[in-house]
Parts: sequence; structure tokens; C-alpha cells
Amino acid sequence: MAFWDLATLPLAEFRPGIHSAALSGDNLIMVCMEIGPEQEDTGHAHAFDQCGMVLAGEIEMFSGQERRLLAAGHCYFIPAGERHGWKTFAAPARLLDVTPKQPPR
Amino acid sequence: MAFWDLATLPLAEFRPGIHSAALSGDNLIMVCMEIGPEQEDTGHAHAFDQCGMVLAGEIEMFSGQERRLLAAGHCYFIPAGERHGWKTFAAPARLLDVTPKQPPR
Repeated sequence: MAFWDLATLPLAEFRPGIHSAALSGDNLIMVCMEIGPEQEDTGHAHAFDQCGMVLAGEIEMFSGQERRLLAAGHCYFIPAGERHGWKTFAAPARLLDVTPKQPPR
Repeated sequence: MAFWDLATLPLAEFRPGIHSAALSGDNLIMVCMEIGPEQEDTGHAHAFDQCGMVLAGEIEMFSGQERRLLAAGHCYFIPAGERHGWKTFAAPARLLDVTPKQPPR
């Protein structure tokens, strides 16, 4: 079993504005991600589901026709193929996010 | 996008001692689970990864040779094939748990 304590988990820069840590096995990738203030993904889609939970901060997410402001304790499930994106505001947002490791072809 | 607010999410009895709610798509199943006091799974294995986070309470988990007492903010990743189980104590434990929907054959 691999294990994280989120209170002390070190994150490393994944790309500008996003720090993360990841665990993966044969089928799943679990990522703890901190997205800095005023960051945005204007939208993308992929052929696999994505799900997770907001741990801290606020993030606006859209998927398909739905748009929501998510905060700590809110969970999301983005179905395979649905165009989705996100936006942060003045404070960073921290997420726990899970995707399949080997999306079906 | 399907969405949960964990503060108000209704759970239904999944089996005696466990209440849950689930979201799933093509590849993933996300489950919020509340395991009652003094419950135990003495061990099982499956050919797919399993990961998640403890939301509230305490749960002892083992996987392979490792055994840990997990509390809120602790995340676990159980690799495919590894024998694992869990045990709760005097209080219920609440988890967010993710598995692949269609384990590879």
C-alpha cells in the first residue's frame, strides 16, 4: 500500500502554476494537485473518466453544459469524452484527482 | 459532470454496516462509503488498483505486509493483486474510494 498524509505531502512543480504528487499502479493514477491563483484550462476532452474532490480553496469547473463553483468537500465526476475545464481565482485550489492509467482504446 | 457535496450527500445501505453512494462512468467508480463501528474485512484481493482518502473517523488498513491506522486526510493506494483488508473501531469511518469500472482481463 502506498500512503499519503495530505497535511505533510510534498508537492513538486508539474508545470507553471501547478504543483502535484502522484501515485499509480496498473490501472489508476491518483494525483494531489495544487493549482495556483488565476489559472485556467479553457477546455479539453479525453476518452476516459476523471473524478476527484476539492480539498481546499475554490475552483470553477465546467463539463459539458454544466458549470459549478467547487469548494472543499465537493466531489466531481467527469464522464469520458465530455469537454471540461476549470478556473481558479485569488487563492490556490487543492484537489485529489483520479484517472485511469490505461484508457481504453 | 456529476457532482457531490459531501456535507449533504445521502448514503444508502450497501450491506449491513456499510452505507454508500456511487458515481460511475465508462472507466471509474467513485464511492463515498461510511463504515460503521467495529466492522472488519479480514482480507481479499482483486486484479485492479484501488485508491482513496479517509474523510472522517479512523480505519486500520493493511495491504501486503503493511498495516496503518488511517484518519481524515490520509490517502491510500492499493496496488492490483495485493491482499488487503480493513477494520473500524468505536466510531464510523467515512471514505472516498475509487476503483476502475472494467478491470482489465
